[in-house]
Amino acid sequence: MNDQIDDTITKEQALHLALDLAKKGLGRVEPNPCVGCVVINERTNKLIALGYHQKFGGAHAEVEALKNLESGEGLTIIVTLEPCSHQGKTPPCANLVASKNFSKLIYIDQDPNPKVSGKGLEIVKASGAKIEKASDEFSKINRQLNSKFFYAFENKATFFHLKWAQSLDGKTSLNGKSKWITGEESRAYGHFLRAQSDAVLIGRETLEKDDPLLDIRIEGFDKKNKVIVFDPKLKSLDDIKNKNVFKLRPPKSVVYLCYETSDSPDVDFLKLKKKPDGEYCLKTLAKDLYEKHSFQSVFVEGGAQTLGAFLKQQEFGRASVFTAPKFLGAQASGPTDSLKFDEISQGSAFEVSDTLTLGDDVFVDLYKK
Amino acid sequence: MNDQIDDTITKEQALHLALDLAKKGLGRVEPNPCVGCVVINERTNKLIALGYHQKFGGAHAEVEALKNLESGEGLTIIVTLEPCSHQGKTPPCANLVASKNFSKLIYIDQDPNPKVSGKGLEIVKASGAKIEKASDEFSKINRQLNSKFFYAFENKATFFHLKWAQSLDGKTSLNGKSKWITGEESRAYGHFLRAQSDAVLIGRETLEKDDPLLDIRIEGFDKKNKVIVFDPKLKSLDDIKNKNVFKLRPPKSVVYLCYETSDSPDVDFLKLKKKPDGEYCLKTLAKDLYEKHSFQSVFVEGGAQTLGAFLKQQEFGRASVFTAPKFLGAQASGPTDSLKFDEISQGSAFEVSDTLTLGDDVFVDLYKK
Repeated sequence: MNDQIDDTITKEQALHLALDLAKKGLGRVEPNPCVGCVVINERTNKLIALGYHQKFGGAHAEVEALKNLESGEGLTIIVTLEPCSHQGKTPPCANLVASKNFSKLIYIDQDPNPKVSGKGLEIVKASGAKIEKASDEFSKINRQLNSKFFYAFENKATFFHLKWAQSLDGKTSLNGKSKWITGEESRAYGHFLRAQSDAVLIGRETLEKDDPLLDIRIEGFDKKNKVIVFDPKLKSLDDIKNKNVFKLRPPKSVVYLCYETSDSPDVDFLKLKKKPDGEYCLKTLAKDLYEKHSFQSVFVEGGAQTLGAFLKQQEFGRASVFTAPKFLGAQASGPTDSLKFDEISQGSAFEVSDTLTLGDDVFVDLYKK
Repeated sequence: MNDQIDDTITKEQALHLALDLAKKGLGRVEPNPCVGCVVINERTNKLIALGYHQKFGGAHAEVEALKNLESGEGLTIIVTLEPCSHQGKTPPCANLVASKNFSKLIYIDQDPNPKVSGKGLEIVKASGAKIEKASDEFSKINRQLNSKFFYAFENKATFFHLKWAQSLDGKTSLNGKSKWITGEESRAYGHFLRAQSDAVLIGRETLEKDDPLLDIRIEGFDKKNKVIVFDPKLKSLDDIKNKNVFKLRPPKSVVYLCYETSDSPDVDFLKLKKKPDGEYCLKTLAKDLYEKHSFQSVFVEGGAQTLGAFLKQQEFGRASVFTAPKFLGAQASGPTDSLKFDEISQGSAFEVSDTLTLGDDVFVDLYKK
């Protein structure tokens, strides 16, 4: 019955396929963007080739897709992101694409990197290919998939991705304990999300009480992430060498956020700036982390007080919330304990991008509206 | 290509089909159970007939399935619940099934109603049919689908089904306002859940502040539900005639739960009993509501304080929670404000039976473990 299967592919299907392929790079390619590439024959609706960026430092999507293709004549190449035009860890893809003489290139988004933006398209256009921009619906998916990449380039600031595990009544810890609220599947998925940022940020109390590892403990993800400790008065600095986050990483992998820096040679420091109201300014922090540490995105894991500060100052792009089917009651604390609103309409509202059932837990992925 | 479709049905598939059919009665058949019936030929794996109980007072599942079937010889009848043996609103189904001379009857659960239990099976067996009980996996689904029906008969007590709409941080109201936390799809689904109980229970404050209608405002569900007001000191009684819940219903449709009853002819009263610690006893209330008012299940909708009492005394079987992607912060209140635990392991744990995305909201259906 196989000959009954419709194996043709429309342009729309090919665009979705390119995005699905791109997504497979999540947690492996950062701080590069997730990119997919599909080659089709628009006349016969045949799928000719495909590829995606699989790993940071590895081949780009176009290189993967074109490795066995001699000529692009009569064919359409679809890319989720404009082909790069600069020499990075790999040679520029725009030149490779141009060399194949495609009839058409369809792209979903231009590269926000000023080194590329528009230049990659120019190179391909000069080879005689018609250049077409995909419709906005695809761009919406692509920009959410690569929200950290786009945000950092467009705002010259670090993207904060908040994550926490809570009870149904929004609590993340009870009497200082926060472990094991959610189940195994949720924790594994949390590691996958952690792999998608350059660094993990925690507050001093979490460092001292939980002494977490904060590495990525799922197979196939060998990324070395840095750790940022929110400790304005450097109270935990004397003891940092005894902590897992330090012992597990090469020197200078821990960054302290503080008011006054110290001369410790083992860790890095970043000075917090105050707002007129006396609170530290997270907007400035986002700028400084990007400029001084080149962090495209930081995964903020808690505790409740630290998360609360980001929620209060509305300084984040995404919040990933794991909810366990249990209640912890009034004596437990949560990230919104410091938020005060007078009207329901003032409550922060989000766009839900994803909902998953993970074991007994429910996962909700939210983007700031 | 239609002749290529595999139109046979296995016994397992037929059992699942019977349960799926039964489910279509939800919100329409209560306080009757949801029941489905499928007739198959086990030798040829052909589906012969099907039916389900569609509406309270309407034909039972077996009557629906057998209306065009002359003889059951050589056939197997599958029922999710033992055929009834007593004359209710309709004649006994066991006699109808027996009259068709089926070769086999497969049932998922016996009827917990002492008027039926086992007697329906006996009648069919006497007609010469082999009687077979389906495996426990089907019973688990059936007992959850009909949890109110089974609970009430087995415990001689009313089943409490809690429902609330909350923010991501578990809050249900802010400055006394609780409307419009969740969206339209969630509210419609809430009405569907409301249709599955005999009465709705609210606290005095909710009655006074929100003046809700508490009817079922979705098409095709014309059930007249009663209203129970939790008002131990009858503070709202003088004004009840001006309230929507009263105006919308025939006399005696509102039941007050209180310490001392009054002689008002317009409403009903049920006296609350106290526990040794001075709090009212919800376990006793469940018994009294069942014995004196024949309520199989009551839908508890709030406010936070009322829901909190049920959570605290662990007197409920199911909790349906709608969560909106927003935070309401520390000044808002929620149903777990009165719950106090010292350890995470003490927090009430539930089994998640269902998760849905409803518009921007996430719905989680929980059963007490």
